[in-house]
Amino acid sequence: MINGSRRIPQPIRWAMVGGGSQSQIGYIHRCAALRDNTFVLVAGAFDIDPIRGSAFGEQLGVDSERCYADYLSMFEQEARRADGIQAVSIATPNGTHYSITKAALEAGLHVVCEKPLCFTVEQAENLRELSHKHNRIVGVTYGYAGHQLIEQAREMIAAGELGDVRMVHMQFAHGFHSAPVEAQSQATQWRVDPRQAGPSYVLGDVGTHPLYLSEVMLPDLKIKRLMCSRQSFVASRAPLEDNAYTLMEYEGGAMGMVWSSAVNAGSMHGQKIRVIGSRASLEWWDERPNQLSFEVQGQPAQILERGMGYLHPNALIDDRIGGGHPEGLFEAWANLYYRFALAMDATDRSDTQALSAVRYPGIDAGVEGVRWVERCVLSADNDSIWVAY
Amino acid sequence: MINGSRRIPQPIRWAMVGGGSQSQIGYIHRCAALRDNTFVLVAGAFDIDPIRGSAFGEQLGVDSERCYADYLSMFEQEARRADGIQAVSIATPNGTHYSITKAALEAGLHVVCEKPLCFTVEQAENLRELSHKHNRIVGVTYGYAGHQLIEQAREMIAAGELGDVRMVHMQFAHGFHSAPVEAQSQATQWRVDPRQAGPSYVLGDVGTHPLYLSEVMLPDLKIKRLMCSRQSFVASRAPLEDNAYTLMEYEGGAMGMVWSSAVNAGSMHGQKIRVIGSRASLEWWDERPNQLSFEVQGQPAQILERGMGYLHPNALIDDRIGGGHPEGLFEAWANLYYRFALAMDATDRSDTQALSAVRYPGIDAGVEGVRWVERCVLSADNDSIWVAY
Amino acid sequence: MINGSRRIPQPIRWAMVGGGSQSQIGYIHRCAALRDNTFVLVAGAFDIDPIRGSAFGEQLGVDSERCYADYLSMFEQEARRADGIQAVSIATPNGTHYSITKAALEAGLHVVCEKPLCFTVEQAENLRELSHKHNRIVGVTYGYAGHQLIEQAREMIAAGELGDVRMVHMQFAHGFHSAPVEAQSQATQWRVDPRQAGPSYVLGDVGTHPLYLSEVMLPDLKIKRLMCSRQSFVASRAPLEDNAYTLMEYEGGAMGMVWSSAVNAGSMHGQKIRVIGSRASLEWWDERPNQLSFEVQGQPAQILERGMGYLHPNALIDDRIGGGHPEGLFEAWANLYYRFALAMDATDRSDTQALSAVRYPGIDAGVEGVRWVERCVLSADNDSIWVAY
Amino acid sequence: MINGSRRIPQPIRWAMVGGGSQSQIGYIHRCAALRDNTFVLVAGAFDIDPIRGSAFGEQLGVDSERCYADYLSMFEQEARRADGIQAVSIATPNGTHYSITKAALEAGLHVVCEKPLCFTVEQAENLRELSHKHNRIVGVTYGYAGHQLIEQAREMIAAGELGDVRMVHMQFAHGFHSAPVEAQSQATQWRVDPRQAGPSYVLGDVGTHPLYLSEVMLPDLKIKRLMCSRQSFVASRAPLEDNAYTLMEYEGGAMGMVWSSAVNAGSMHGQKIRVIGSRASLEWWDERPNQLSFEVQGQPAQILERGMGYLHPNALIDDRIGGGHPEGLFEAWANLYYRFALAMDATDRSDTQALSAVRYPGIDAGVEGVRWVERCVLSADNDSIWVAY
Repeated sequence: MINGSRRIPQPIRWAMVGGGSQSQIGYIHRCAALRDNTFVLVAGAFDIDPIRGSAFGEQLGVDSERCYADYLSMFEQEARRADGIQAVSIATPNGTHYSITKAALEAGLHVVCEKPLCFTVEQAENLRELSHKHNRIVGVTYGYAGHQLIEQAREMIAAGELGDVRMVHMQFAHGFHSAPVEAQSQATQWRVDPRQAGPSYVLGDVGTHPLYLSEVMLPDLKIKRLMCSRQSFVASRAPLEDNAYTLMEYEGGAMGMVWSSAVNAGSMHGQKIRVIGSRASLEWWDERPNQLSFEVQGQPAQILERGMGYLHPNALIDDRIGGGHPEGLFEAWANLYYRFALAMDATDRSDTQALSAVRYPGIDAGVEGVRWVERCVLSADNDSIWVAY
Repeated sequence: MINGSRRIPQPIRWAMVGGGSQSQIGYIHRCAALRDNTFVLVAGAFDIDPIRGSAFGEQLGVDSERCYADYLSMFEQEARRADGIQAVSIATPNGTHYSITKAALEAGLHVVCEKPLCFTVEQAENLRELSHKHNRIVGVTYGYAGHQLIEQAREMIAAGELGDVRMVHMQFAHGFHSAPVEAQSQATQWRVDPRQAGPSYVLGDVGTHPLYLSEVMLPDLKIKRLMCSRQSFVASRAPLEDNAYTLMEYEGGAMGMVWSSAVNAGSMHGQKIRVIGSRASLEWWDERPNQLSFEVQGQPAQILERGMGYLHPNALIDDRIGGGHPEGLFEAWANLYYRFALAMDATDRSDTQALSAVRYPGIDAGVEGVRWVERCVLSADNDSIWVAY
Repeated sequence: MINGSRRIPQPIRWAMVGGGSQSQIGYIHRCAALRDNTFVLVAGAFDIDPIRGSAFGEQLGVDSERCYADYLSMFEQEARRADGIQAVSIATPNGTHYSITKAALEAGLHVVCEKPLCFTVEQAENLRELSHKHNRIVGVTYGYAGHQLIEQAREMIAAGELGDVRMVHMQFAHGFHSAPVEAQSQATQWRVDPRQAGPSYVLGDVGTHPLYLSEVMLPDLKIKRLMCSRQSFVASRAPLEDNAYTLMEYEGGAMGMVWSSAVNAGSMHGQKIRVIGSRASLEWWDERPNQLSFEVQGQPAQILERGMGYLHPNALIDDRIGGGHPEGLFEAWANLYYRFALAMDATDRSDTQALSAVRYPGIDAGVEGVRWVERCVLSADNDSIWVAY
Repeated sequence: MINGSRRIPQPIRWAMVGGGSQSQIGYIHRCAALRDNTFVLVAGAFDIDPIRGSAFGEQLGVDSERCYADYLSMFEQEARRADGIQAVSIATPNGTHYSITKAALEAGLHVVCEKPLCFTVEQAENLRELSHKHNRIVGVTYGYAGHQLIEQAREMIAAGELGDVRMVHMQFAHGFHSAPVEAQSQATQWRVDPRQAGPSYVLGDVGTHPLYLSEVMLPDLKIKRLMCSRQSFVASRAPLEDNAYTLMEYEGGAMGMVWSSAVNAGSMHGQKIRVIGSRASLEWWDERPNQLSFEVQGQPAQILERGMGYLHPNALIDDRIGGGHPEGLFEAWANLYYRFALAMDATDRSDTQALSAVRYPGIDAGVEGVRWVERCVLSADNDSIWVAY
C-alpha cells in the first residue's frame, strides 16, 4: 500500500508547460505528481499569457524567477542551474506536443506528455529515436493505465483464467459533444480543428485510451489488420470525426472492436473494456473503476473489488486505501506518475533491471497510439478498406 | 390492461407442428397462445415419434384422433372437418420451416413460425407470394417484438424525443456455446449444421432478434449497405459462425452495428438495443425487460418502468400487471400471440382497417430477416466487403 | 423443467369467488391456476354484480349455469353435481376472507385465499381446525413463496453456506400510496378502512410477504419477541398505518427487521430479503427475481442466475425456461398454484407422504401471518413495547 | 471548480499527532490537507516510537527538529517558535482523543480530530467550552460531510423537492469483522476494547457517519427520542456491540432508522442514506459516491451525476474534475480539509461572516455524535426502552 513513504531517494525536480489557471488537466497533473513526494514542482511556463502564468505559479509556491514566459526559455535557463528541472509535463493542445517534447528531450529532460504525442508516425518515430539517444523517459498519460484492476486483469489473463482470448471489445463513448458545443467552448474548439488536433478527433482523443488498456492487459496481442468507419454527425466537424468504429483482426484469430465517440448522447464517460476468452470474460468500466466483473461461463458472475486480499499481489501494491472505499481518477493518475518517477529514477541511476520492472505507458505506447490513429484514418478515408498494421 | 377479456369474438382453432414433450420452445408457444383465450389447442403433430406425440397431445387435452403422425396428414384431415384448425404454429428445426410453412399456407391456414422462415430470399419471397395469394397471416416469433417498452421506445422516437437518430447499436450475445457443447446437446447440434440451420448460425439465430426490434422502433430507417465479419471460434463449426459483427449504413447517414454471438463467455443472454439521437439515447436489455433507460444529454438519466402512468398509452394496453411487478419473457410472447390472433381474426373478417392497426412481425419481417442474413454472409464470405442492401 | 406435462392424474375442477372483469388479481389467479393443466375453471361467483359476473364468466368459457350470483349458492349447487368443483380461490376484499373460507371448508372444498385469511388469531385457529376436520387444503397466496431462487436460498442456508444466521432483514416498501390516492382509487380505499382491511394496512398487506419468505428460507427460526412502531403519514389513514418498523429477536440470538411501507416515495415495489450469516449473506429482490446475490465475506460477490446448472436441483425443477430469459411474477404464482394442486391431489388420494413433500404456504402460514400482524399492532399501540411471541 | 488556486492568503502551518508509517488513516489526512495548498506540514509526533516517527517525518519533508517524541513536547516547543504550528490533526486511537484535543486547544491550536472526540457528553461539553474560550476550530472527520452530492441533497431538500420529509434511513454496515479478526489485527483490537474504544464499537465507529450526513442534509430535524438494540455477534466483543439498530422519532413526526454493523458479511462498506418525503426520495451510497438517486413518486427515477450543470451551484464549487470521471474518498476528505482551512482562516482573521458561511463538521457535530452514542447505549442497556434526546 502507498502511505507516503517514497520509493525513490529524492523527489524529482519538475516543471509544467501549460496547465495554468484556466486548465483543469493541469490540476490533475499536479495532483498526481505531487501526491506521493516523488515530484516537486519547481518551475513552469504555465500559461500563454506570461503574467497570468507567473501569478498562478507563484501562488502554487513556485519561485517567481522560475515562472517562465515560454518553454524554450525555461529549458534553457533551467539547464544552467545546479538545481534545474529534471522532468517536465506537457499539458498543451495537441498541435504543440511534438515540438515541445522534442525540445525537452534535446534539453535532456524526462517528459510526461498528453496523448497524442504528435500527428504522424514519422514524427513519433523521431521522438522515439530522440528518447533513446538522450536516454530520457517519455511518459504518456493514459490515465487508467496504472489502475490496480487493470493490473488484476493482466495477471488473470496471463494466468489463463480466461482461456484463449477471442475478443477484445473497447469503447470510449461519451455524449458531451452531441451538439456543436465548440461554438461556445474553447476547450472543444481546438479538438475539432485539424490544424490543432491532427488527423482525427475521437479516434485519438478517446479511442486510444481503451486501446492502451488492451495493450496492458494483453501484451502479446498484435493487430494484423483493421478497418474503420468514421462519421461527423455534427457536420461542421468534418473532416474530423465525432464517432468511429474500428474493427481489428489480431494475429492468431482474435477480434477487436473499438467504438470511439463524443456523441453518445446521455452517456457520461463510457470507457469500457471487455475481454472475452474461451472460458471466461472480464469487464471493466471507468465510471465504476473499483469493480471488475469476472464471468466464467457456467458459473455465477463475480464482482472483484479493488483492495481485497483475493486479488493478485500486483493489484494491491498501489492501493492507497482498503477495499470498499472508492478510489477515483486522481488515484489512477497518481499511480501513473508514481511509475513515471520510478522509471525516471531508474534511468538516472542506470538501473536497467529496475527500469524493466516498471510498467508504464512510455514512448512505445505513444508511437503505437499515433500509428493506430493513422491506420484508422487511412481505412476510413478509403471507404473502410482493411489496412495492414 | 389485459385481464382475460378476449378482444376477438371466438378463440382460433389452433394446432402445433413440433413442440412435443422434449421441446422447451413448444411450451413457450402454448403458454403464449393459450394465455388470453384467443387460441384453443385442438390438434397437433407434436413429435417426430408419432406415439410419443399422441401421448403428449392427449395429456394436453387434445383429442387422440387429432394427434397426427405428421403435418401433411394433419393439414389434410383437418381440412375436412367443419371444426378444423384455422392456424398452426411451427416449432421444428430451421431446415423444415420452409416446406411446412408452404404446405400450411396452401392448406389455407394462418401460420406462426420460428425464424428463420427459410434459407434464401428466393424462398422467402415465394412464401410472401403464397401468403398474399391465400390471404393468410404468417407470424414470425421475434419474442420481444410485442413488449410494452419496445412500444414505448417506438413512440418516443416517433415523437422526436431523441432528436435525429444517429446510431443504432444492437447485440444478442450469450456465452452458452463458448465450448463445443454440441457434442452433448442435440438442441445445439442442428444449429451448427448448415444442412439443418442454413447459411448462418448466430446471425440468423440471435442477430435477427434485435434487428427486428430496431425495425419496430425505427420503421423509417432503411439499410443502405452493410459489411460483416464472422468467426468460428469453435473451429468445428465452420463454415457456420459463432460470432459476427455487422456494420450498417442507413439511408440518411445513420449507422448501425449488430454483434451476434454464442461465445460471449459468462454472458447470460445479452440482447440489447441502444438508439442514439442528437438529443438523447434509449437503451433496453432483455434480461431487465421492465426497465427502459432514457438519457437526455445534459440531464439526469431516467429509468422508465413498465406499467407506469407516465408511459405512452400504447405502451400500457398490453400490461397484465401494474408497474413494479416483473413481467418476463412469457408475457412478451403472449403479447405477440395476442397480436397474431387479432391479425388472423381481422383477416378472416376481411377487416383491413383493423388489420392495419395490428403491429406484429409478419411475412415482411420474415423476408427481411432472411435477406439480412444473406447479405451478411455474402459480405463475410468476401473479406467483409460492403454489400448494397 | 415444466413443459406442460402434468404431474397429477386429472386437472382439479376449480372455481373463483371474486376476480371479475374489474379485478386484476383475479387475472393473476387464473393465469397461475390454468398455466399447467392442473386446474380447470368450471364455475364462479366472479362479481358482486351477478349479471356482470355471468357475462365475464361465460367469456372465460364457463357454462352460464355455473356462473353464480354468490358464493353460498355456488357451494350449495356445485355440491350436488357429480362434476362439481373441488377447489375454490377467493379474491375478494380482506373483510370477507374469513366467512368465505369457512363456508368453503364446510362445503368440503380446497381453498386458495388471499392473505390475510382473517383479522384475529382466534378466527385463524378456527379455520385451521376446520381445515383439519374436513381434511382440506388452505393455500395462501404469498406470491413468491414458490420462486426457484427462494428454494435456492433455502437449500444454501440449510447446507450451512452462510454459517450461523445472525440477521434477517426484510422489506416490502413501495411508494404508490405516498399521497392519499384512496380518494380516487377504490382498490386502495378498502385497504385503509379498518372495517374491510382489519387491524392493519401495510403490516398485513405487504409486510407478511417477506416475512413468509423468511419462513421458507429459515424453517427453524422462531420469533421470541418483537417490537413495532407504526405511522400514518397520510393522517386520514389512522388508525391504520402506511409505514411500520418491526424489530424481532429470534430464539438463539438472531435478529430480524421488517420495514413495511406504502409511502416509500419513488420506490416501485421494494420487496427484499437479506439473510446475513457469520460467513456470508444472501440477498434477493422481487423486482429482479432472476438474480440472487451471494456474498461470502472476503470473496468476490457472486450473482446467481435462475435456471443455471450450478443451482441446487430443487431450484431447477420449477423452471419454465432456461437461464438468461427473465421469468416474472406470473411464473412465481404458477409455481404456487402448481404446488397447491399437488397438495390437493395428494390429500384427495390420502397420500400423506406425497403431501409432506410439497412445500407451500398453507393454513399454518396463514395463521402465522395473522398472529404476526396482531403482535405488531399490540406492540405499536402500546408505545412499541416488546411483545412475547 | 478547484484547480489549485488557494482561497486563503497563506497555507496554515500544520502538524499531526499519530498517522505514522504504519497508519493508513494518517496518509488520508495528509492527502486531504496537502491537496490544495491550504495546509503545509511542518511538524509532527507521528508515532508512539519516536525514532520511527522521526524517520517517517523526515521522509515526508519535515525538519528533523520538528519531529517530536510526543504531542505535549510538540505543543510546548512549537508555541515558542515564530513559525510554530497553527493547527494539528489527531489520528490516534479513540481513548486518547479527549486529552490530546484538550491539550491542543489549551495550546491555542486549531484541531482536526477523528471521531469520537471523547467518550462522554460531559467531556464533549468541556471541549466545546474550551473551543469557545480559546476561539479555536475543532473539525471532526466525517469523511463524506463535504461531498458535493451531499450538498446537492441538502439543497434539494431545502427547496422542497421531496415534500415533507417523513423518513430518514441510514446505514453503515460492512462485513469485515464478521469473524473475530481482532485476534490477528491490531487495528481492530483496540476498537473492540472498551478502555480504548469507549462505550460502543459500531454505533460510534460507523453509525455516527451517516447520522452526520443526515444532519447536513436536514439541519432542522431534531431527534425527540430513540430506542436501540445492540448485539455482539462475536461474543468476545461484549459489552461492545458489532451490530446495532437505532430507531428514532424526530420532532414533527418523521422517523429515523440507523443500522450500524461490522458483521454484514460480504458487504464492502455499505454507508447509505435514503431520505423519503411525501413527494420524492433521495438515496446516496458511498461506494458509488458520484451518483445520487432522485425518485419522484409517479415519475421515472433519475440518476444525478456529480459535476453536471443541472446540479445546484453549491454542489459544483468543490469539483476537481468534470462529470463522468469518478472522484472518490480522497476528494471528499480534501473538501473537508479545505473547509477546515477556510474556517480556521476566517477565525484567525476574526471574520465571523466568512466563518458562518463555511459548513463543516465542527465541535457541535462532535458533541452531537457523542450524545447520540451515549443515548443509544443507554437504551440498548435497558432492554431497548425509548430514551428522550
